[in-house]
Amino acid sequence: MIIDIHGHYTTAPAPLGQWRDAQLAALDGGQPPASQGPVISDDQIRESIETNQLRLMNERGIDVQIFSPRASFMAHHAGDFETSAAWSRHCNDLIGRVSELYPDRFVPSAMLPQSPGIDPATVIDELERCVAEHDIVAVNLNPDPSGGHWTSPPLTDEHWFPVYEKLIEHELPVMVHVSTSINPAFHTTGAHYLNADTTAVMQLLTGDLFATFPELKMIIPHGGGAAPYHWGRFRGLAMMLDKPPVEEHLLNNIYFDTCVYHQPGIDTLLEVIPHKNIMFASEMIGAVRTEDPNTGHYFDDTARYIQAAELSDASKQSIFEDTARAVHPRLDRRLTAQGR
Amino acid sequence: MIIDIHGHYTTAPAPLGQWRDAQLAALDGGQPPASQGPVISDDQIRESIETNQLRLMNERGIDVQIFSPRASFMAHHAGDFETSAAWSRHCNDLIGRVSELYPDRFVPSAMLPQSPGIDPATVIDELERCVAEHDIVAVNLNPDPSGGHWTSPPLTDEHWFPVYEKLIEHELPVMVHVSTSINPAFHTTGAHYLNADTTAVMQLLTGDLFATFPELKMIIPHGGGAAPYHWGRFRGLAMMLDKPPVEEHLLNNIYFDTCVYHQPGIDTLLEVIPHKNIMFASEMIGAVRTEDPNTGHYFDDTARYIQAAELSDASKQSIFEDTARAVHPRLDRRLTAQGR
Repeated sequence: MIIDIHGHYTTAPAPLGQWRDAQLAALDGGQPPASQGPVISDDQIRESIETNQLRLMNERGIDVQIFSPRASFMAHHAGDFETSAAWSRHCNDLIGRVSELYPDRFVPSAMLPQSPGIDPATVIDELERCVAEHDIVAVNLNPDPSGGHWTSPPLTDEHWFPVYEKLIEHELPVMVHVSTSINPAFHTTGAHYLNADTTAVMQLLTGDLFATFPELKMIIPHGGGAAPYHWGRFRGLAMMLDKPPVEEHLLNNIYFDTCVYHQPGIDTLLEVIPHKNIMFASEMIGAVRTEDPNTGHYFDDTARYIQAAELSDASKQSIFEDTARAVHPRLDRRLTAQGR
Repeated sequence: MIIDIHGHYTTAPAPLGQWRDAQLAALDGGQPPASQGPVISDDQIRESIETNQLRLMNERGIDVQIFSPRASFMAHHAGDFETSAAWSRHCNDLIGRVSELYPDRFVPSAMLPQSPGIDPATVIDELERCVAEHDIVAVNLNPDPSGGHWTSPPLTDEHWFPVYEKLIEHELPVMVHVSTSINPAFHTTGAHYLNADTTAVMQLLTGDLFATFPELKMIIPHGGGAAPYHWGRFRGLAMMLDKPPVEEHLLNNIYFDTCVYHQPGIDTLLEVIPHKNIMFASEMIGAVRTEDPNTGHYFDDTARYIQAAELSDASKQSIFEDTARAVHPRLDRRLTAQGR
């Protein structure tokens, strides 16, 4: 089985975006949208999924995708906690509906109603609601809800601990994933996403979070940002900071996905990072939607790179399925209940 | 000849740091230090260089290093323009003295007296002084003088144009290099440096700077941050943004150094980036000063990785010497005058 652990609903029907636009306009005095959220039919969902993600999953042999709200649209910087709470609820409910319509293909992961300067513990109500109502298998946590101003403490700070405790209680891994950048210095998908991944790895290397939370599982998307390419630097910095070797300090708890959009990058990831710490993902349909003229295939068709890499069958099995099931126990139980 | 295009005076004699401490203390009402700068003897300089950089250059077969003030100590965020102007002058003069003591081994590059929120054109006096008095061959430009708050416009903005015009006039390439991070989210050498490199590449990809300044040469240090590892993403984003292919859009003007501290990272860089766009560098003695227990050699002994890579003699000659001389015309003239 091929499990893609990183997909977003980037193709949601238009009423979702319209609802959000009205919500943001209401912050400036406009008419607020319906509090019960956008009106979207099952047929609209089917249309948006079957012509996009599901079509590509079928073409590429991907069985299941862990599916969460569009990352760049989380935009936690906008408005206040109530803004994020309502937006998160509607986005997460839509993801829940996708997974109910395609229970064999899409498994829900939630966004959280973060807001800059607000105690992260305030996200727990929505997190628990998504566990109870949608049986989510993971969550996305934004280390920078300010949108590129980086005003939150590092992920190793006690600031975040209430969220970690709740994640562990519910056997949920967390993907560290920023949203849109409102800082003109940072292009959202070309700089801010990758910088956040690199920053998260270095925060985790500098601190001792997993001594406090040995059960916490963190996923660093986009192939770990710059970290695998600079793994020698990170290993050396761990020595300079008197930390244990990264294998012991980080690699019992952090995982990298394979959202690296060319063969040499994937090969680097596979050469540097133990295969037990790598999970297949494509983030399709996402930042890069074009074909690579050098290969004639989509940049984000990452399964092709894994298949082309020099890998044992055991490593492929681990990367495509086994580690995803081990890191996401709720996903594993869901698949097992389906006889898979 | 092996030219290392990226070295900082990280081992400067103690009076330099003491002068800076006094300067910063004076911002809070302390006694200001002597305006003529720290008192450092030639013997103190020799001691600090011969036991450190020069010793390692001799051990590693590096003939020449382009040498600039310690990057993390530039700290442009501290104080105001006058603070940075005085600090830059003393740091640059010390680099000038190193190159006069070892004219065959160290070639000067300057830091600039940047200050957050201040027009970059204010750095031109110091830039011209360093050309006239020290015959610098390059400069370091900080894209984020705020120290991790990223309050400056992108490098493609007209904000920076007066500096670019002056660089071109004096045939100086520019290394894009941040300084220390005062943002707790970003570890200076593990996150902020790499993020800045990635950010710079994406700013340049998003804009059209080299259409305006076709003669400008920019060096992205630390192997280009995350960019080569994610080169597929960058190539795809160029398509998404309706830009020309990166070869045409960026690779006539930007260059990556080889400050990547393990063999697989160097191999990725060499596989992905045309060799004409790569220049040898080690940034020793810098962020990572330990030996890699896996190899028994220093992480920052990057010449070893280049020598071990599968490279033609022509590519090695280009990476170790020819491109450095082509990108730094003032260096080339200096070496030619020495009969090299």
